[in-house]
Amino acid sequence: MGNYNWEALFPDMVEWRRHLHRHPELSYQEHHTMKFIADLLMSFGIETTSGVGDTGVIGVIKGDLPGKTVALRADIDALPIQDEKECEYASQVDGVMHACGHDGHTAGLLAVARYFSEHRATLKGEIRLIFQPGEEVCPGGALKMIAAGALEGVDVIYGVHLWSPLPVGILASAAGPIMASVDDFVIDITGKGGHGGIPHVTVDSVLTGAQLVVQLQSIVSRNVNPLQPAVLTIGTINSGTAKNVIAETCRITGTVRTFDEETRAVIRKRFDEVTRHVCAMNGAEVEIDYMMGYPPLVNHASETERFFEVATEVFGADHVEVTPPMMPAEDFAYYVQEVPGCFIFVGVGNEDKGITYPHHHPKFDMDEAGMLNAAKILTALAENYLQQSAVET
Amino acid sequence: MGNYNWEALFPDMVEWRRHLHRHPELSYQEHHTMKFIADLLMSFGIETTSGVGDTGVIGVIKGDLPGKTVALRADIDALPIQDEKECEYASQVDGVMHACGHDGHTAGLLAVARYFSEHRATLKGEIRLIFQPGEEVCPGGALKMIAAGALEGVDVIYGVHLWSPLPVGILASAAGPIMASVDDFVIDITGKGGHGGIPHVTVDSVLTGAQLVVQLQSIVSRNVNPLQPAVLTIGTINSGTAKNVIAETCRITGTVRTFDEETRAVIRKRFDEVTRHVCAMNGAEVEIDYMMGYPPLVNHASETERFFEVATEVFGADHVEVTPPMMPAEDFAYYVQEVPGCFIFVGVGNEDKGITYPHHHPKFDMDEAGMLNAAKILTALAENYLQQSAVET
Amino acid sequence: MGNYNWEALFPDMVEWRRHLHRHPELSYQEHHTMKFIADLLMSFGIETTSGVGDTGVIGVIKGDLPGKTVALRADIDALPIQDEKECEYASQVDGVMHACGHDGHTAGLLAVARYFSEHRATLKGEIRLIFQPGEEVCPGGALKMIAAGALEGVDVIYGVHLWSPLPVGILASAAGPIMASVDDFVIDITGKGGHGGIPHVTVDSVLTGAQLVVQLQSIVSRNVNPLQPAVLTIGTINSGTAKNVIAETCRITGTVRTFDEETRAVIRKRFDEVTRHVCAMNGAEVEIDYMMGYPPLVNHASETERFFEVATEVFGADHVEVTPPMMPAEDFAYYVQEVPGCFIFVGVGNEDKGITYPHHHPKFDMDEAGMLNAAKILTALAENYLQQSAVET
Amino acid sequence: MGNYNWEALFPDMVEWRRHLHRHPELSYQEHHTMKFIADLLMSFGIETTSGVGDTGVIGVIKGDLPGKTVALRADIDALPIQDEKECEYASQVDGVMHACGHDGHTAGLLAVARYFSEHRATLKGEIRLIFQPGEEVCPGGALKMIAAGALEGVDVIYGVHLWSPLPVGILASAAGPIMASVDDFVIDITGKGGHGGIPHVTVDSVLTGAQLVVQLQSIVSRNVNPLQPAVLTIGTINSGTAKNVIAETCRITGTVRTFDEETRAVIRKRFDEVTRHVCAMNGAEVEIDYMMGYPPLVNHASETERFFEVATEVFGADHVEVTPPMMPAEDFAYYVQEVPGCFIFVGVGNEDKGITYPHHHPKFDMDEAGMLNAAKILTALAENYLQQSAVET
Repeated sequence: MGNYNWEALFPDMVEWRRHLHRHPELSYQEHHTMKFIADLLMSFGIETTSGVGDTGVIGVIKGDLPGKTVALRADIDALPIQDEKECEYASQVDGVMHACGHDGHTAGLLAVARYFSEHRATLKGEIRLIFQPGEEVCPGGALKMIAAGALEGVDVIYGVHLWSPLPVGILASAAGPIMASVDDFVIDITGKGGHGGIPHVTVDSVLTGAQLVVQLQSIVSRNVNPLQPAVLTIGTINSGTAKNVIAETCRITGTVRTFDEETRAVIRKRFDEVTRHVCAMNGAEVEIDYMMGYPPLVNHASETERFFEVATEVFGADHVEVTPPMMPAEDFAYYVQEVPGCFIFVGVGNEDKGITYPHHHPKFDMDEAGMLNAAKILTALAENYLQQSAVET
Repeated sequence: MGNYNWEALFPDMVEWRRHLHRHPELSYQEHHTMKFIADLLMSFGIETTSGVGDTGVIGVIKGDLPGKTVALRADIDALPIQDEKECEYASQVDGVMHACGHDGHTAGLLAVARYFSEHRATLKGEIRLIFQPGEEVCPGGALKMIAAGALEGVDVIYGVHLWSPLPVGILASAAGPIMASVDDFVIDITGKGGHGGIPHVTVDSVLTGAQLVVQLQSIVSRNVNPLQPAVLTIGTINSGTAKNVIAETCRITGTVRTFDEETRAVIRKRFDEVTRHVCAMNGAEVEIDYMMGYPPLVNHASETERFFEVATEVFGADHVEVTPPMMPAEDFAYYVQEVPGCFIFVGVGNEDKGITYPHHHPKFDMDEAGMLNAAKILTALAENYLQQSAVET
Repeated sequence: MGNYNWEALFPDMVEWRRHLHRHPELSYQEHHTMKFIADLLMSFGIETTSGVGDTGVIGVIKGDLPGKTVALRADIDALPIQDEKECEYASQVDGVMHACGHDGHTAGLLAVARYFSEHRATLKGEIRLIFQPGEEVCPGGALKMIAAGALEGVDVIYGVHLWSPLPVGILASAAGPIMASVDDFVIDITGKGGHGGIPHVTVDSVLTGAQLVVQLQSIVSRNVNPLQPAVLTIGTINSGTAKNVIAETCRITGTVRTFDEETRAVIRKRFDEVTRHVCAMNGAEVEIDYMMGYPPLVNHASETERFFEVATEVFGADHVEVTPPMMPAEDFAYYVQEVPGCFIFVGVGNEDKGITYPHHHPKFDMDEAGMLNAAKILTALAENYLQQSAVET
Repeated sequence: MGNYNWEALFPDMVEWRRHLHRHPELSYQEHHTMKFIADLLMSFGIETTSGVGDTGVIGVIKGDLPGKTVALRADIDALPIQDEKECEYASQVDGVMHACGHDGHTAGLLAVARYFSEHRATLKGEIRLIFQPGEEVCPGGALKMIAAGALEGVDVIYGVHLWSPLPVGILASAAGPIMASVDDFVIDITGKGGHGGIPHVTVDSVLTGAQLVVQLQSIVSRNVNPLQPAVLTIGTINSGTAKNVIAETCRITGTVRTFDEETRAVIRKRFDEVTRHVCAMNGAEVEIDYMMGYPPLVNHASETERFFEVATEVFGADHVEVTPPMMPAEDFAYYVQEVPGCFIFVGVGNEDKGITYPHHHPKFDMDEAGMLNAAKILTALAENYLQQSAVET
């Protein structure tokens, strides 16, 4: 990768990203995006399959030399958010916006595609380019890509998230769990309504719901291994229609986040037990809709070590950080359940330029220089892996 | 009262009541009703004052003989309920209906008015007819009538409620507290919202509200004299906007019912303490809007005893009952805070005729024969009181 | 009863009472007391049976005239309390004391016995004297006396409690429930102990117990008819052995008081449900020992009315009061479950003499003049009943 | 260290350890132990100071070559536990036992002392031997040793804990926090006792305590950063004296464990707020005794990296592990608040030999071969540090 003129590639990356930014598409509706990616890959002379996992694209670059297979992944969908930026590349689609940076992920991986398409001669093995739809919804596109065979024959996988809380120039990761599992729930309690002055012939849904919210606190405080991070948040409670009427029903919703499957399972089990017993205790009926979302994203130790080595070499030790785990979820988690891999945060924040809005914010933007870093680290990791595994063999 | 031909009066009562039923008016908007009452009173030759307490009417019947002054009260307002009955006298006003029976109270008291207007010669004292507006709202019309001097010179007061849970033919009352005080509250909690996965930088309003609902239970279970009935119902709780967002605010509303002022004051004090401490404990702000409604209605022992004697004599012992206290409120309570008196329930239910709907129901109706009983008992009580006090003097 | 010289009898009553006071005996150990009573009854020429219901005595006085049978009841047992009074008649038995006034009840009924033994000629029916053991324990002596046939042929029963909160000279009662049912419970929770820093492999008995105490509040606040007095008190909670060890077990004890059997049953049912669900919710085992004590004491309306009439006649209206219900229990309740009757409180308090200590206090004493009032009211009630029923027949 | 005949030293280590095991002494009473250590150090020709920090010993070995100063620490106190082992070296002191392995720590450091006393010629700097009293109590001996100057001029510190859950042969550590802070608390609530049937004139301490236990759960579930391990355990609750008496007081005790000072401070602050508000809410008084124990033990990254390198070299990669944080506390934490350092767990468990009892168990024992590993790793770390710092200079 040493002498490659990445900077020459940068204007194209910016153009690609801004084109996607102007034309964002929601999860599993990325038809234009898919065609845009596929056309570019084919223009680079890359073997390209569209429509994988609904609206995904897979590109395959086989090196002239034998070796392992490295998958590199970008997600391509946008969000149902109204773009509030005022700039020439702002979203042209009402209520839809690339507010999470997937446009940049795509542009970055396209640059990597072009690089490897020009370096087949020295490529020891295969580069699998995975452009994945539907990362923002549940079930995520990763599952669909895997089901469609995206990981067949793959030895290792790398992915990045451009990250605005991190200054541009910085890259970060960590071994083990770095992004949370996110499960959601809806609890529907049905008591027995009645006159506010005659409680003894009713089943009070407000009280039942309130008792439940209080009791659920003990799951994190007592039932979870204290060394394992876990959050059980009740986001909403809604019950009752009038001051002087005892409520018939109560709806409670919330979210559960963990970094390991055991804790996740413990919480789900205890959640069920506590909810059912609190409701039964009051004589109320209950329906629980517990939706398992993405699993925790667990980086493999060896590949994370590789990241730290390669990144230090490419960017310098001052530009590489260990990140603590983060509470958002990411469906890259599914890939690293299947094959070794590492997920990396690449800084795109820039206070000097006023690029400080958080992800999912209507004014979210990125310092596009970060895209180049994303392309470089993915390329370097792939080359390092293939080189090293070729040596080992 | 002995030989009076009440039955001859009955068709008029029915006509009056049905006229009012067709033309219901909301609290403090009883302009037509007021004129209807005043015109009738004047047609009976009664000294009549309209516009008392906004839309009330007072009629004064002075007997030819000296004596005490007895007030008799009817309330005249309707409710914001859509009449669902199908009959010729159904409400002709969209969304307004005499669903509590005040039309019958009015017709009953008009009949009493006619009776006494025809018996001035033997009347030992004065009959004060109080047709009161706004019983269904807070503050109630009773306060306005009292402020306007309705009780000046009054020695005793009687009132009735036509009561559909009680079969027609039955009359009931009890000494002491028989209808509850009703106070309402709205609690607005303001915490600090945030990401559902990052609780430690927030103040969780859902949890604060839930803890509050649970803690408030201990007021009735521990702080109230167990010999004093009391209800604290939380009717509604609403908090949060999304599963994965910690709620910024929580609104809780409810009602408090008691039968004595001391218990009422204890609950208000404890309510305030518990609410403020639970919120402060969580670092949340709170605003409490505690609205004092009608006080408990406390029948005077001597006048209730008079009711049982007189009613037994007029209707027979089989038709007179002792009623347990009831949780609804009634602003007749204010009158008996000022002068001795008794409030009486007069049956208008009739299963055989399908008259079984509860008060405030869109299909509420009454067996109109109960109106006659109301007129009779008011008349008999007034005569008994005046007779007896004349003897005593 | 009119001209009887009760005052002449008074010195004997004092002597009897003080003798018993010096020689108190615990429940079902009243052997000396039994003999003392029986000897006196026999000395009055009364047909006497000892050893009824273990250590009770029944005396039968048949009048020369035919008529109904009136039972009069006194309880005779003392309490395990150390007498702290300093007077010549203080208890001579270490740790045992007549701290509830049963010595006075006995002396009073003995005086009644003597009265009727001297008035057989005019007695229209039978007087049944029930001297009952074991009122202070559960199951009470009333059940044993009834089982032994004490109520066979009885038409009505009266009993008194000398009452120090009431000034001497005053008598009080009320129709309906006047003394509470008292049930007790012991809850034994077994969780799973462990290291204080490793909660997730334990079942925390402290938390389980605390949650239970909080949840049990909702029974009185929500499940009980608010018009029915009810108390559920948790008297003790004990759990844990060390600060840094999660507790294996938790013991909770308490008491439940009500004034009607329906409320009593509701509480017991809800108590069971709440306790079992809270424990199961936490994965804890639980054993519940729920001991049904005395039922509520419910005075019959007609016999209470008789008391008010007779007492007003004998003592004057100023000396007769209506009492609100009281939370202590009394096994006289069992008698009035079987036959009509009335239980009466007879004042023995006297602030001027410093007689102000509550019942069960180590310095409890009585103004002995109250005993005479007790004897008089029992006598007058019996005579009134027998006279009136003779007339009716 | 390469060619040193450690095995020749082993029998002496065993003898030293077993001597101490037979003669255990409680914290700050280690007079015989102190003399035993000091005598041995002096016999090795080491500059020795006794009575440091009450009953501690410091030995100083100055190398012939210039360099940095390395402190090595052993703790020397025993526990108030009755030894239940049956072996010739069982404790000869009733109720006192080396149940935590400090005898082995001492023997290990004595072996290190002998090694360095024989290698002064090549020693590049100074070895400071810290034999510390009172590790099992609060405040710990570490504070006293530091106050006495034990760390003056010290550049780095190492310490070990022989660890029975870890098989002999294995060594483990981790960068960052590896042992918890441990704070304790006692809460004394004073309500207002009273009759179990008359709650409204009392302040119920059982309920107040129970509400507090429930509310305290929300500190870990909501107020603590979910990425920071934290435990708040209520170990005991005791309130009330009788089933039918409302309790006047309630005592609650417990423990708090964290791995960082910020979380520790958050919990203490919230603990105070929740406790005071719950008690004030009920009208109860409260006294809180919150005792700050040892801080979290935080290994320095660079010295932990050194451990992994050195241990891998000495024992082989298969014998070195990364340990997750542990909930017990260790006052070595104070040393590494002052100077860089690393604390290491050295396996002494041996299932084949039945050596499986946990620390603080009456049958706790160790596979003494672990002591040799402890001596080796301390020696190797010291040599590595001094060698490397000499090179750097």
